[in-house]
Amino acid sequence: MELHAGNRGRLVAALRAHLSASGRPLHGIVLLKGGEEQTLYCTDRVPLFRQESYFAYLFGVREPGFYGAVDIASGQSMLFAPRLTLDDAVWNGEKDLSFFKDRYKVDYVFYVDELAQVLLSQFSEHGEPLLFLLYGKNTDSGNYSKPASFEGIEKFDTDLSTLHPILTECRVIKSDMELAFIQYANDVSSKAHIEVMRQIKPGMKESQLESIFIHHASMHEGCRHCSYTCICATGQNSSTLHYGHAGAPNDQTLNDGDMALMDMGAEYNFYGSDITCSYPINGKFKRNQTIIYNAVLRAHNDVISHMQPGVKWIDMHKLAEQRILESLKKENIIHGDIGDMMNQRLGAVFMPHGLGHLLGIDTHDPGGYPEGLERPEEPGLRSLRTIRELKEGMVITVEPGCYFIGALLRHAKDDPSSSKFFNWEKIEMYKSFGGIRIESNLYVTAQGCKNLTNCPRETWEIEAVMAGAPWPSRGDCSSATTTENGLPKA
Amino acid sequence: MELHAGNRGRLVAALRAHLSASGRPLHGIVLLKGGEEQTLYCTDRVPLFRQESYFAYLFGVREPGFYGAVDIASGQSMLFAPRLTLDDAVWNGEKDLSFFKDRYKVDYVFYVDELAQVLLSQFSEHGEPLLFLLYGKNTDSGNYSKPASFEGIEKFDTDLSTLHPILTECRVIKSDMELAFIQYANDVSSKAHIEVMRQIKPGMKESQLESIFIHHASMHEGCRHCSYTCICATGQNSSTLHYGHAGAPNDQTLNDGDMALMDMGAEYNFYGSDITCSYPINGKFKRNQTIIYNAVLRAHNDVISHMQPGVKWIDMHKLAEQRILESLKKENIIHGDIGDMMNQRLGAVFMPHGLGHLLGIDTHDPGGYPEGLERPEEPGLRSLRTIRELKEGMVITVEPGCYFIGALLRHAKDDPSSSKFFNWEKIEMYKSFGGIRIESNLYVTAQGCKNLTNCPRETWEIEAVMAGAPWPSRGDCSSATTTENGLPKA
Repeated sequence: MELHAGNRGRLVAALRAHLSASGRPLHGIVLLKGGEEQTLYCTDRVPLFRQESYFAYLFGVREPGFYGAVDIASGQSMLFAPRLTLDDAVWNGEKDLSFFKDRYKVDYVFYVDELAQVLLSQFSEHGEPLLFLLYGKNTDSGNYSKPASFEGIEKFDTDLSTLHPILTECRVIKSDMELAFIQYANDVSSKAHIEVMRQIKPGMKESQLESIFIHHASMHEGCRHCSYTCICATGQNSSTLHYGHAGAPNDQTLNDGDMALMDMGAEYNFYGSDITCSYPINGKFKRNQTIIYNAVLRAHNDVISHMQPGVKWIDMHKLAEQRILESLKKENIIHGDIGDMMNQRLGAVFMPHGLGHLLGIDTHDPGGYPEGLERPEEPGLRSLRTIRELKEGMVITVEPGCYFIGALLRHAKDDPSSSKFFNWEKIEMYKSFGGIRIESNLYVTAQGCKNLTNCPRETWEIEAVMAGAPWPSRGDCSSATTTENGLPKA
Repeated sequence: MELHAGNRGRLVAALRAHLSASGRPLHGIVLLKGGEEQTLYCTDRVPLFRQESYFAYLFGVREPGFYGAVDIASGQSMLFAPRLTLDDAVWNGEKDLSFFKDRYKVDYVFYVDELAQVLLSQFSEHGEPLLFLLYGKNTDSGNYSKPASFEGIEKFDTDLSTLHPILTECRVIKSDMELAFIQYANDVSSKAHIEVMRQIKPGMKESQLESIFIHHASMHEGCRHCSYTCICATGQNSSTLHYGHAGAPNDQTLNDGDMALMDMGAEYNFYGSDITCSYPINGKFKRNQTIIYNAVLRAHNDVISHMQPGVKWIDMHKLAEQRILESLKKENIIHGDIGDMMNQRLGAVFMPHGLGHLLGIDTHDPGGYPEGLERPEEPGLRSLRTIRELKEGMVITVEPGCYFIGALLRHAKDDPSSSKFFNWEKIEMYKSFGGIRIESNLYVTAQGCKNLTNCPRETWEIEAVMAGAPWPSRGDCSSATTTENGLPKA
């Protein structure tokens, strides 16, 4: 709960600085509404509740139906809990206000039905009653957060524009305690990935790999949620970027000789991880697998070597594209001038997604496009969830990939200005290859970055671990084994 | 897919019979809209999609965004798939209409944007265009299903009242193929429960029991979903009926000497199971645990012995209450006349939930209160999700329980008309006992019922299995080991 108190503290400081700078009085109350439990369609089936992320950031409350407030003048925090009926006590358990005060370490806890009265009383000495509500666009989904509403809100002035960008920016820069949770989620997920790597064999089902991962994270490490639906794609399935969804539920049998692309991350106390490992199902890289794998690994490592505050993320994306194109050219899969290819946005045929995204309480953490920063429109670049300059304290994924996606290749073939770059005979040989992605989670430091993920990345490391060699080769499974530039120590 | 074709066949037959009986023409089209993928709050996080249950029943489609239609005159079936963009192909995979036609074995597949045109063309020879849409109340949640809507719907007459009760009634009576899936889900869950039973020991976390169950069902049996959030309640937690939710996330450490109440069920191809086992964490029943356990087991077994078509479910509920009260009286936990207790609804203090509910594609399958059947208002009885007469082909849970719930006991103590029945000194001894529930899934046959669940139920069986004895003692883990009356063979 110290973590969430720290988050509130940073928000209050940032809001005060903003209000000061605009010559506004340092008063008002931040009010957020937590998530509500949802039933599925018309039934009474209730999927496991997961708190709304901004609310989780500030209050860490795991129950549905709460409101939370922070007084800007005093910094004091308040929670408002739903008033429980006798039926609620029987079905969901008895909890009184002191339980919540104790658990969530806030200054006061009241009932939701006391909201208007309690908030009004806060303003008796502090001028006009003013509420800062959360309203703003999530630039990944295009959806807007819903500002809190309650009976009696008409007695307050409300400010809908100030809070969202400031709170979002607080979330972009991780505190040490937040980092510790993301590191823990990374440690858990790195270990769980290695567990899958060790158990995988031809004849299994993709869903069993998902099961091994989830079980490891929940059985041994206390992670009840994953950050997202597990992508356990083998063979050609790995060219479907979000394979694993309900329509493609990791249900293929594993073929000897195919590659596996495993994109899975556990979540702990709301904070997530997002890790992808790619490796051969039978534990031995074939030549063409090594070629594509190393093309992606070189992009992954080069990006990490260049990361530091001030570096523009769009440049890192282009760097990754360029490294991949260079490798493909070297193998005569494509030909021509790399600069021309870059101008033609050829990289987007092989890597149609963005290089990486902010990571935190949301897998795609908000703040990628603050006011004034426009999303690019070109193929590949438009998939970037951020194009910001890196700042110390950001956590961002680095996840270059190289895929042979039928729909995109056909599209490229139909366009003479891109078609000319391809060696279509070679491409044909890769048509059922699928794709490879390598994804690590990086923390931006003052001088560079720190890799929070610790999975074997070199082909020989992967082959050794799959054959039973210990990992990590020394020390624990945390970032201690990474260099200042964020790459695993050789 | 044969199962879903069978479901459509039964619906068409039932609709035709209904239309005939009302002297209406046997024409029109049943149109349902499948579920849509939902994002979480304002983010782009997409929880794993689960199809809407009525749509799953008729079409078995696992993807979001579909419509499905059945022509009443011809019995022909149509699916309407969302038209995919190039981006959809890249992120979610390429699938054309023939893929869906092949997979879902319907007569035609079109795109959603062709809906109005295709449906209108069906009516060129069959009179006025009439759509039967699904609109009606789910009596567990109180929510209404949303009738399908689409661009151009104003060109059709729509009937909102006919379909829902008829389709719901189809779902109440299970076909042999539906039964086979529910049996499979029961087999998986029975085995997974036994796995948990064998691994449980003091010092573990409740969440680890959840993890063992889920892993067993998904790793070895292909069940990706559970029917509901796992309830892994130990000690006093077991008196919270829906323990395990986000606010009480199975996070207690297991104490030697406490009981465990494990309510968990796997789902397979939409069809679910709902099973509860109660047993001592350390594998040995203490005297007071045996007393309460056997009180519940006697209720469970007596109800099952009485089940057959024509029996009223509310009478079964009362029978269970009576058996539990009798056992508690025998132990001097309560005293007085059992009839007086029943009139006072004393059973609801110890078992505030209903005896059981219909089970199928929904854990709480619909149809519990068809038109004309009113929910009772008395404590305990009002929690019943159905009070219907049993019919051959129903699948229903039998889940008596006996709990020592602080809030209800205080309530009962404050009321002299109920307080007099309690031996409060004895009750005090049970105040941190928690509760016990035993839950099996029963299929109503022509002469009785068949128990689909196969878990050890007698205290000695449980102790033996927990000590490592094989289970089931003979044959496989299916209903083959139950007698005609649905009880496990001794």
